Amino acid sequence: MTALFERHLTTLQGAMDAAAKRDYWSAYPEIPSGKIYGETARDDGLAAYEARLGKQFEIAGHPAQSSVGVEVSPYGPSLGIGYPSASVELLVSASQAAATQWAAAPAKARIGICLEALSRLNARSFEMANAVMHTTGQGFAMAFQAGGPHAQDRGLEAVAYAYAEMTRTPAQAIWTKAQGKGEPIVLDKHWRVVPRGISLVIGCNTFPTWNSYPGLFASLATGNTVIVKPHPAAILPLAITVEIVRQVLAEEGFDANALLLAADTMGFEITKDLVQHPATAIVDYTGSNSFGSWVRANAGKADVYTEEAGVNSIVIGATDNFAGLCSNIAFSLSLYSGQMCTAPQNIFVPRSGISTDDGHKSFDAVAAGIAGAIDSLLSDPARAAGICGAIANPASLARVNEARSLGRIVRDSAPIEGLDDARTATPLILSVDAAAEAAYCEERFGPVVFIVAVDDVTEGVNRAAELAERRGAITAALYETEEASILAAADRFAKAGVNLSVNLTGGIYVNQSAAFSDFHVTGANPAGNASLTDTAFVANRFRIAMWRRPAAA
Amino acid sequence: MTALFERHLTTLQGAMDAAAKRDYWSAYPEIPSGKIYGETARDDGLAAYEARLGKQFEIAGHPAQSSVGVEVSPYGPSLGIGYPSASVELLVSASQAAATQWAAAPAKARIGICLEALSRLNARSFEMANAVMHTTGQGFAMAFQAGGPHAQDRGLEAVAYAYAEMTRTPAQAIWTKAQGKGEPIVLDKHWRVVPRGISLVIGCNTFPTWNSYPGLFASLATGNTVIVKPHPAAILPLAITVEIVRQVLAEEGFDANALLLAADTMGFEITKDLVQHPATAIVDYTGSNSFGSWVRANAGKADVYTEEAGVNSIVIGATDNFAGLCSNIAFSLSLYSGQMCTAPQNIFVPRSGISTDDGHKSFDAVAAGIAGAIDSLLSDPARAAGICGAIANPASLARVNEARSLGRIVRDSAPIEGLDDARTATPLILSVDAAAEAAYCEERFGPVVFIVAVDDVTEGVNRAAELAERRGAITAALYETEEASILAAADRFAKAGVNLSVNLTGGIYVNQSAAFSDFHVTGANPAGNASLTDTAFVANRFRIAMWRRPAAA
Repeated sequence: MTALFERHLTTLQGAMDAAAKRDYWSAYPEIPSGKIYGETARDDGLAAYEARLGKQFEIAGHPAQSSVGVEVSPYGPSLGIGYPSASVELLVSASQAAATQWAAAPAKARIGICLEALSRLNARSFEMANAVMHTTGQGFAMAFQAGGPHAQDRGLEAVAYAYAEMTRTPAQAIWTKAQGKGEPIVLDKHWRVVPRGISLVIGCNTFPTWNSYPGLFASLATGNTVIVKPHPAAILPLAITVEIVRQVLAEEGFDANALLLAADTMGFEITKDLVQHPATAIVDYTGSNSFGSWVRANAGKADVYTEEAGVNSIVIGATDNFAGLCSNIAFSLSLYSGQMCTAPQNIFVPRSGISTDDGHKSFDAVAAGIAGAIDSLLSDPARAAGICGAIANPASLARVNEARSLGRIVRDSAPIEGLDDARTATPLILSVDAAAEAAYCEERFGPVVFIVAVDDVTEGVNRAAELAERRGAITAALYETEEASILAAADRFAKAGVNLSVNLTGGIYVNQSAAFSDFHVTGANPAGNASLTDTAFVANRFRIAMWRRPAAA
Repeated sequence: MTALFERHLTTLQGAMDAAAKRDYWSAYPEIPSGKIYGETARDDGLAAYEARLGKQFEIAGHPAQSSVGVEVSPYGPSLGIGYPSASVELLVSASQAAATQWAAAPAKARIGICLEALSRLNARSFEMANAVMHTTGQGFAMAFQAGGPHAQDRGLEAVAYAYAEMTRTPAQAIWTKAQGKGEPIVLDKHWRVVPRGISLVIGCNTFPTWNSYPGLFASLATGNTVIVKPHPAAILPLAITVEIVRQVLAEEGFDANALLLAADTMGFEITKDLVQHPATAIVDYTGSNSFGSWVRANAGKADVYTEEAGVNSIVIGATDNFAGLCSNIAFSLSLYSGQMCTAPQNIFVPRSGISTDDGHKSFDAVAAGIAGAIDSLLSDPARAAGICGAIANPASLARVNEARSLGRIVRDSAPIEGLDDARTATPLILSVDAAAEAAYCEERFGPVVFIVAVDDVTEGVNRAAELAERRGAITAALYETEEASILAAADRFAKAGVNLSVNLTGGIYVNQSAAFSDFHVTGANPAGNASLTDTAFVANRFRIAMWRRPAAA
């Protein structure tokens, strides 16, 4: 029952240790190298992906009444994959039928199954990379990392936190209360983890695995049965995930319906019915603020964990490495064409310019420096394709076109050469004054960037932080050389619940959030009400029940 | 800044250690003895209480626009105490004005203040006992224990959990990511606790301190400012609490308005306005299911922790100590006249009777045995007064009268001799058949007990567990000699989210819940959505914000 737990114990201990220390640590190599994953892994992964295309995705033993699926790669081709589809009632009843056995499993059995599944997912990272690439539009390297090892690390992190919480209270204890000169009262007490019910995980289009794995694995580990509701445009990565986890469940003698796929189609989503179903006890949601607001208001007694959206900002006060600043920001803005929830949208720059190692730079010179760095970064079309990828949602492309009139164009967006069937767009950069709030104070998801003229760094920090408090923000960045100004910004952004990166000029970017060290989203502003992964993310996914009796004499 | 933390560190460590081991432990002696609390403590406490009567309760620096307070002791006399009253807006703005400084305090400073306040509350336990006795109706000994040391232990438990959670993530770490043959990326990261906002603690009439201290101290410790809204009939115990905590806050240089009292009057409650105020981020509520349901539905984005109500059951299958069973149950039913949220209401007994050490006992003999044990326990009026106390709410007395027609009277309720000015009632015991669900399947708060005839122990367990799932339950008890039947009941009650006590026949009772060992309420059925105190109770009371920058070379 706990052989899998023993097999992966070193990994679990590594994760728990890393989460406590918060130094760099990873269980799953992020480099898509044949030396690590096997010399044929790249080709095998591509072949496995291609073998899925144009076929029915069969999941053994999964409830199915019909087939759905109309995924189209942002790079052009239709995937043509059909997925098992079942009514909400059928999914819920299958989930409930699996619940008693799953809840009764020892925590170590559930943890072992989660760890084995993550290990198998890791071995399938090349296949997953293709699946993620062609549902999200991410470039291959990013799809491998964010869809594969980084998502697996986030899943492992949730499992580690869940294990720590489930074992915080002992399973048994003797309670001895002295009674003066009389015999003490001695009770034998037993505690157990009681799961909450059905856990619904609602995936998003852009990071189907990375954003879903924490909730999925945290809920499974704590004994809840899970229904995964993928975005209709990004089903495949989660279907592969569900298939792999179910295989482990079945091998270990559990009802594989402890994890179900709730595939649906655009325009016929079953999400609301799942959220409102009285059997739903937990909802993990990644997506827009508008639907997130609906979920929070309509989930009834279910606990809701959200990552919604926000407006992320960079504030530039001064730098001792102007070239590094420009190239670092250029990469952050270009990566996946601004479709990361952590990507900056607004760059606040003093209208009188900034001091740098390369002398004073005017507002326009700062804007031109960043724009030029993007031009340089994306000058080679193949590299541009790898960094920017494609645009997941046609609406994001439309937003780029609409945004052109919102300010003075510093750098225009353009399609990427050589990706003729794909939806692509390099960053559009506009300059505006701080007064033009209608332009930059709402989220314009995709490659749209505003360089906003402010009086000074303090105004920039305040505007960025207030915007975070009002509309949400997941990241903030600051370039500044005065220590007092840095510490004041750290205070201000902490109060706004935004994680801040200061003076990044090398190979690390504000968009990046590392499992076991960086908490993703604070839960303290409208960009989300939960954090990946802290104790609060797992501790409510189960309850503790006790029974006690007088200890045998 | 952390001198108080250092002073009470041993207590804090003891609490954390006990919560991990869950053996018996207590920081505050429960015996109202002059040897422990000082030879004059009892008289001093009474004098301090009496000095409050008929006067304005002044709280230095507390917002006040008028005076409220119409408390009447369940033992007869009016307290005649006026409390400072202020509008919701004034309370909220005062709380917000104190927030920034309190949030910025080091965790150890806040923890130290909480521990010092608990220590001072402990020293005032005799005064508190009188205050609790004359607002709740509890007998003096119980008012001392439940209102004093046991409540303080529960507060300390919450502080210990809060400290453990706030320090789980380090304040600073160096993150080093190797880069093949290149220089590693090294980031210096800083984390801090960010509180949620205003924490509203809504107290109840029967256990004003015990049920309020966990939320109050958990929220204060994690940096939130707190507004305590006492039940209008039980203001004094929380007013004393607020006064003492505010003294410590002020002495340590903090704005005492980090803790405020929101006193009001029956019929003019400000509770709804406080719950719905957009600045309210956390609500701790103890009270009825009906108002609890309103709070959960109307708290907006605030997190809500509730202890509501339920129907607690005892199931009797067999016993090897019939006399012990009867006397143990008799005490559980008599203590505070059934006004504990943990008191049993329904006793399921096989209609064919049970086997005991004293031979077979028919259904009627079991009922008579329990009734007789109550008669014996309460035969001395002084002892009866001490055990039963008085009835807090006139409605509970009315319920006893209404209940007489709901079944066959096995033992009638009666007033307690010698407490002529008090509202008193000994337990009313009715026998009914399991089919009479309308009688026993709703909570009849107060000294009303049903002995319910069932086919066998399995039916009793199932009915009790289903009732818990449907209406909530905090405790369950079982008397059974077959091990398999005990383990099956443990499974069934755990699934229903009820803590179970088995075969209690000595000096420990199903009503009793010990801090650091017994979690109070599971949060897994309608009797409440939270548990006192587990990690889930504290982990959401703050967020973690981070800032990072390249480490200096």
